[in-house]
Amino acid sequence: MSAAGTVVVERFESQVLRGNPLGDPHVREIPVYLPPGYDEERARRYPVIYWLHGFTGIGLSSIAKSLWTPTLPELMERVIAAGAPPVILVMPDGSTRYGGSQYINSPATGQYEDHIIQELIPHIDRTYRTKPGAEHRGVVGKSSGGYGAVVLAMRNPSVFGGVASHSGDMYFEACYKPFFWKALNVINRHRGIEGFLRAFEAMPKKARDAADALTILVAMGQAYAGNADGSFDLPIDVTTGEMRDGVWARWLEWDPVVMAERYADALRQMRLIYIECGTKDEWNLHYGARIFHQRLEALGVRHQHVEFDDDHGNIQYRYVESLRRLAEALH
Amino acid sequence: MSAAGTVVVERFESQVLRGNPLGDPHVREIPVYLPPGYDEERARRYPVIYWLHGFTGIGLSSIAKSLWTPTLPELMERVIAAGAPPVILVMPDGSTRYGGSQYINSPATGQYEDHIIQELIPHIDRTYRTKPGAEHRGVVGKSSGGYGAVVLAMRNPSVFGGVASHSGDMYFEACYKPFFWKALNVINRHRGIEGFLRAFEAMPKKARDAADALTILVAMGQAYAGNADGSFDLPIDVTTGEMRDGVWARWLEWDPVVMAERYADALRQMRLIYIECGTKDEWNLHYGARIFHQRLEALGVRHQHVEFDDDHGNIQYRYVESLRRLAEALH
Amino acid sequence: MSAAGTVVVERFESQVLRGNPLGDPHVREIPVYLPPGYDEERARRYPVIYWLHGFTGIGLSSIAKSLWTPTLPELMERVIAAGAPPVILVMPDGSTRYGGSQYINSPATGQYEDHIIQELIPHIDRTYRTKPGAEHRGVVGKSSGGYGAVVLAMRNPSVFGGVASHSGDMYFEACYKPFFWKALNVINRHRGIEGFLRAFEAMPKKARDAADALTILVAMGQAYAGNADGSFDLPIDVTTGEMRDGVWARWLEWDPVVMAERYADALRQMRLIYIECGTKDEWNLHYGARIFHQRLEALGVRHQHVEFDDDHGNIQYRYVESLRRLAEALH
Amino acid sequence: MSAAGTVVVERFESQVLRGNPLGDPHVREIPVYLPPGYDEERARRYPVIYWLHGFTGIGLSSIAKSLWTPTLPELMERVIAAGAPPVILVMPDGSTRYGGSQYINSPATGQYEDHIIQELIPHIDRTYRTKPGAEHRGVVGKSSGGYGAVVLAMRNPSVFGGVASHSGDMYFEACYKPFFWKALNVINRHRGIEGFLRAFEAMPKKARDAADALTILVAMGQAYAGNADGSFDLPIDVTTGEMRDGVWARWLEWDPVVMAERYADALRQMRLIYIECGTKDEWNLHYGARIFHQRLEALGVRHQHVEFDDDHGNIQYRYVESLRRLAEALH
Repeated sequence: MSAAGTVVVERFESQVLRGNPLGDPHVREIPVYLPPGYDEERARRYPVIYWLHGFTGIGLSSIAKSLWTPTLPELMERVIAAGAPPVILVMPDGSTRYGGSQYINSPATGQYEDHIIQELIPHIDRTYRTKPGAEHRGVVGKSSGGYGAVVLAMRNPSVFGGVASHSGDMYFEACYKPFFWKALNVINRHRGIEGFLRAFEAMPKKARDAADALTILVAMGQAYAGNADGSFDLPIDVTTGEMRDGVWARWLEWDPVVMAERYADALRQMRLIYIECGTKDEWNLHYGARIFHQRLEALGVRHQHVEFDDDHGNIQYRYVESLRRLAEALH
Repeated sequence: MSAAGTVVVERFESQVLRGNPLGDPHVREIPVYLPPGYDEERARRYPVIYWLHGFTGIGLSSIAKSLWTPTLPELMERVIAAGAPPVILVMPDGSTRYGGSQYINSPATGQYEDHIIQELIPHIDRTYRTKPGAEHRGVVGKSSGGYGAVVLAMRNPSVFGGVASHSGDMYFEACYKPFFWKALNVINRHRGIEGFLRAFEAMPKKARDAADALTILVAMGQAYAGNADGSFDLPIDVTTGEMRDGVWARWLEWDPVVMAERYADALRQMRLIYIECGTKDEWNLHYGARIFHQRLEALGVRHQHVEFDDDHGNIQYRYVESLRRLAEALH
Repeated sequence: MSAAGTVVVERFESQVLRGNPLGDPHVREIPVYLPPGYDEERARRYPVIYWLHGFTGIGLSSIAKSLWTPTLPELMERVIAAGAPPVILVMPDGSTRYGGSQYINSPATGQYEDHIIQELIPHIDRTYRTKPGAEHRGVVGKSSGGYGAVVLAMRNPSVFGGVASHSGDMYFEACYKPFFWKALNVINRHRGIEGFLRAFEAMPKKARDAADALTILVAMGQAYAGNADGSFDLPIDVTTGEMRDGVWARWLEWDPVVMAERYADALRQMRLIYIECGTKDEWNLHYGARIFHQRLEALGVRHQHVEFDDDHGNIQYRYVESLRRLAEALH
Repeated sequence: MSAAGTVVVERFESQVLRGNPLGDPHVREIPVYLPPGYDEERARRYPVIYWLHGFTGIGLSSIAKSLWTPTLPELMERVIAAGAPPVILVMPDGSTRYGGSQYINSPATGQYEDHIIQELIPHIDRTYRTKPGAEHRGVVGKSSGGYGAVVLAMRNPSVFGGVASHSGDMYFEACYKPFFWKALNVINRHRGIEGFLRAFEAMPKKARDAADALTILVAMGQAYAGNADGSFDLPIDVTTGEMRDGVWARWLEWDPVVMAERYADALRQMRLIYIECGTKDEWNLHYGARIFHQRLEALGVRHQHVEFDDDHGNIQYRYVESLRRLAEALH
């Protein structure tokens, strides 16, 4: 049996994303990791874990090699080598030209939830020797990927039986709102959103503060407050910086700590809910995780909540915690 | 006539602050600046401007000499030399052991508004040749001092006839709340507020992040949400970081952008309302100033709103703008 | 003719690097980019540009896709689409476990210059339809890659006929030495170099300050002051921070601004020498580039020296400047 | 006996500084602290400690009150209250329009050493009941003040019998040179030194990076490499950033780690040499202190060398260490 698994990069032509409002590609490169032994044990079927990249990531980010940071397949192989059951990993692509879709349906970005649930997962199940039941399918990610994992699982309990979130977006009050005004400073340098977007597109190198402003107001605005005509509403007045309560309320409908109660039954069906965050998270996500944990406790939802001593960046090494738990829970 | 004014430091024994809940001194050192000619023109009476120091400042901060930054009296003399009418300056002391009182009455800190309105101003009027009417008395400050100026003027239109705020605390949603979670990180390192306060008192050098945490949650909490027994309520759960809406609502009662409507009549009585803020303010106060400006517009309150290209630190040089306007409006 | 080129990843088994002192792999993954038309015009031969990755990079870094930053092949295609002659690109791998080899031979890291000059280039010329003369072969890189490009070209004028350096290491006095003492702070936290290296290897996530310390003292020390037994000498006393002039003099032998005179004849043989650096370079490399430029002027070496308004990070977009010039000079 | 000492501010008219090349005032305000009991015990004489302010400080900085940081007299009283013998403190003023003189004679700034040694100390001894011998006179300071203390003591062993340096400038290779290139970036934004100085003078608020550039290249250049005509030489080429070895050698003549051997006899005469520095010093001064310590060891000079866990800023609390030791050594 081969010691190492293999990676196939699927060039997936999405029907769902074709003609999406941002003009983003409907063809996505989606790596699929097949575990050691896949080719030899030709009758064996495997659980599948869907890994969702973070903001400004792409599906291929999972397999980009670098000097000191293992790829996701390498981390998976460590976990398997340490005794966990082998699984298939699939790394979808939820990116948009402005950074990311949060893996949800929005008239301002596209139907990213539908893309994963309705066409990608069936394709994977047709193409590879998967165990196709929800009890054998999990979803995991970090940051925006952790958010996507939690939201997709809550909304699709017949599809996913396990979910893990690493430093996922939660409690928007603490993880998004505090950064709105710095973002406005950047946007106002370009005389409003339109000028800002033009300037951003034209930057050969995306300035850090511009990318942050884009993330927090544009991309999140498109995800959480998109309109039927493809536009989106801002939760804040660009000039005065005053919150627009009505739009903000639409955002909060997508906040996992608010959604938890609505989706309590779905959450109770999960074989594994694993939530973790570093206690130095720059986006205050450890507070979001604590509040989510508290909500699940109150709702009587079985789950694991872990904290570790690190911040939000370069914490790929933490995936061994979720991959092992998911592999064990879903095999 | 002497070219330079003189500074007297009053050692003021406050009856109002005696026995204050934090055990802070009831004797305060309060510099009083008397303009050029005060000693010669012995029958002349002068308008008075009360200058309120910022957070962690004291009354004496106004006259501490340094190499490159003029003192407040030096700035006043520049303004007078450029043609403004001479005025008396008084620099009260609103400090507390945890940084500052915001110049308001609170059962958790002391009656700082009463101290200024009820005993300091009468003392000054008895002691110096002031023009004692409200139309000749102004109040100005920066940051917490700008906040104090606006709030004292709104609440005491029979005492103050002019007010100027430099980068004053306004729109608490943007100037305080975004910083709560970083403050909690510091507080939680010491296992809660009590441990944090003990650690803070023991620090021979106050760490910057600790001082920031103290400011934003402890000192502001004491000012805006003090209880009759001397304790105060936090607007956030220390552990989970979830906002406590009830306490936060008590804070908002003290937010100038909320207070404006309630005190519209008082504001309409002012001869001068001058509001300014730098467009790079680290505490997002330029947004607060814009919202306050918008509120005053809506209420039909005459005022001036100015922005400049700088941040929150070391902007003493801006005082020439307010001192000149106040001297001209109140003489 | 196909609009896009293709990328082949060579899995190159190096004889030169086998058994290298750091135990780094002797098999390296080396992407090779073949331009549009390569497969159709089967008799056509092409110039070759060797691209050298920067510190902590690897050969594969050149082709890792990301959302907002084009890959090196994508940049090359832009240049070709704009009219430049098509070229083959080769992306060698000069990484070591401690970050990088600077592409030179050292008894402490391995014979990286020999690897490229003696075995990789001949292999490429045997394998692909290259124009094999020096006048058709160039070398380019950024940061440590820019350093490697300049040093390899100076030392091998019979191999390379063109060289371009983006923000390359130069004038060690300004680009390395200023950072020694901060590096010592980190190293001393681990009680010296050995403890530091052990701690570094054990970090699941390499702390930024640790990676910087490793770069500036360990990796550069190994490259510039390696000893026959595989050890290396530090240019500074770890405890007192006093410079060791003898070791530092060995470093300076490898400083391009010092080497320029020694290799003046080689430099004069280049068809293109292109040196650029951003004027906000965090490692002060714009000063190094100016001094190198001044040296070349004094030596009568024809070259181009360009400055631009940016810093050291994420400046891949600048490669269009060098790729175009090299393609035109070497075709 | 009074529990607290008193502070007199001397308005000292210097003959030495009159007509100094920078046009700085020759009248300086110099606080003098007289210990508890000074007025009562009218025959008692006291040792004197001269405290030298740091860069951009002034003599009055020692007595400026603030909320959380004790003044120098307050620290002295703590030390006396804890049992140390009472001493007189004198706080000279060595400031210049560009930040500071380093307390040495220079044709580009003025004769600051002469000012202290030849006119201020005699004046103090005439005016107050001092013990006038060197064995009863000490000098202490932090940063540039620590530098001044060490240099004045080395050069005037007949005047000072004890010296203490807190985080004093030492080993210029590590404390000045690493910061030259960032300083050049600022200076070059203003097209050279003259434009930079004009811009600096015009800034109502001195930008941090401009003040740093002024310190490291202008003020230090004036102190260490002043010319007879009042000009000074830069140790670096403004445009290329290449070191000018001849000028740099003149700087090094003033480096305490270089001076130690030359002044070994003077150092051996001290009753107390106390050197301390925090191990996180941003200017790398802990390395300077270690090298100075090593030099004194090698020269057989008795001294104390202490390290503590802090950085360079706001470390006034450390003065209790030197004031106690000096009071005990000099009484």
